[in-house]
Amino acid sequence: MKAVIPYKKASAKSRLSPVLSQEEREEFVEIMLNQVIDSLKEAGIEKIEILSPSMYGLENMRKARVLLDKNDLNEALNIYLEQAEEPVLIIMADLPLLSPNHIKEISSTKEDVCIVPGKGGGTNVLFIKNPSSYRVRYYGSSFLTHCSIAAEAGQKIEVYDSFMAGTDIDEPEDLVELLIHGKGPAKNYISKKFRLKISRGRVGLSQI
Amino acid sequence: MKAVIPYKKASAKSRLSPVLSQEEREEFVEIMLNQVIDSLKEAGIEKIEILSPSMYGLENMRKARVLLDKNDLNEALNIYLEQAEEPVLIIMADLPLLSPNHIKEISSTKEDVCIVPGKGGGTNVLFIKNPSSYRVRYYGSSFLTHCSIAAEAGQKIEVYDSFMAGTDIDEPEDLVELLIHGKGPAKNYISKKFRLKISRGRVGLSQI
Repeated sequence: MKAVIPYKKASAKSRLSPVLSQEEREEFVEIMLNQVIDSLKEAGIEKIEILSPSMYGLENMRKARVLLDKNDLNEALNIYLEQAEEPVLIIMADLPLLSPNHIKEISSTKEDVCIVPGKGGGTNVLFIKNPSSYRVRYYGSSFLTHCSIAAEAGQKIEVYDSFMAGTDIDEPEDLVELLIHGKGPAKNYISKKFRLKISRGRVGLSQI
Repeated sequence: MKAVIPYKKASAKSRLSPVLSQEEREEFVEIMLNQVIDSLKEAGIEKIEILSPSMYGLENMRKARVLLDKNDLNEALNIYLEQAEEPVLIIMADLPLLSPNHIKEISSTKEDVCIVPGKGGGTNVLFIKNPSSYRVRYYGSSFLTHCSIAAEAGQKIEVYDSFMAGTDIDEPEDLVELLIHGKGPAKNYISKKFRLKISRGRVGLSQI
């Protein structure tokens, strides 16, 4: 099996722009990417590829192979799947709460496909045993789409139910989860800039 | 063991008021309460108690025993724990994605306490084997507080990592998770009023 991480550093994470500058967001996605790669390595996955439309920020990447593809995310991934000759783990770069143990469990699914739902209908991780008979369609309600695609292709799917793996970092409220449940470089980066703001409802953020 | 569900129907779920009227919110919390009770029963839990500051909406409750306590939530629960002579499962009433299987797993923890984190630092479920040596403090960052209370009392804690059990329904965006991942009466109620609004980011809601 091999893992592929779609990644784009330039102007990343625009929905965090109310609380982080472009420079900070670019720093932060790089830190998250490295943390995901480290988790994959710790889970024993040796073949790790980064799929990116640009070499920006990846010039000195030594921990994973970089594949440049200027197509849009879905097209690039579907070409990747078509050419893959082994099971593929597609893992997003914004999952700092994902642990090596999650990765081991996801990739040892008994079904043909294992999907980790993200917040608001997204897909955080997809493990695909037969990549040539599967295609992806990210954006929108991709969790439901990916379940349908599996069903249409006669592939059985496991939904991997995890709060931590399900927390993708896109919006300011997601940083709250990172501060509460996280560890490692991504949490350290955010905890230098924000602290928790306690109220009667859900916890918020305040700038330090 | 026994399960206790804190519950208040009157003017419930004020953070859903941008999308549901007070009458609808009161209907909806009652449906969610019943769904949680049904999941507990299906998990084989026979002693189920509802802890409420008012009998409003509970006059005809037959599926669980109703305990009236006009103290605030924490005080009422801590009195309850002090008097309990068996393990206690404290379960919030707004968890329509919680399944009988989750309940079985949570209540068969090997540790002294099992906690299910909710969104934004909350606590969705607490299973406490030795209730007389534990106390609760809901609101604010209760997940972190409940972990600290366990540590101070020398009680080992398991964090139960579940997207579904971790989804408490408090804000309009949570209804999106219910539409995508839910089933049963709570989902049916919401799917008559809203449909998913697909965009490039996280899925939203639109009124039908």
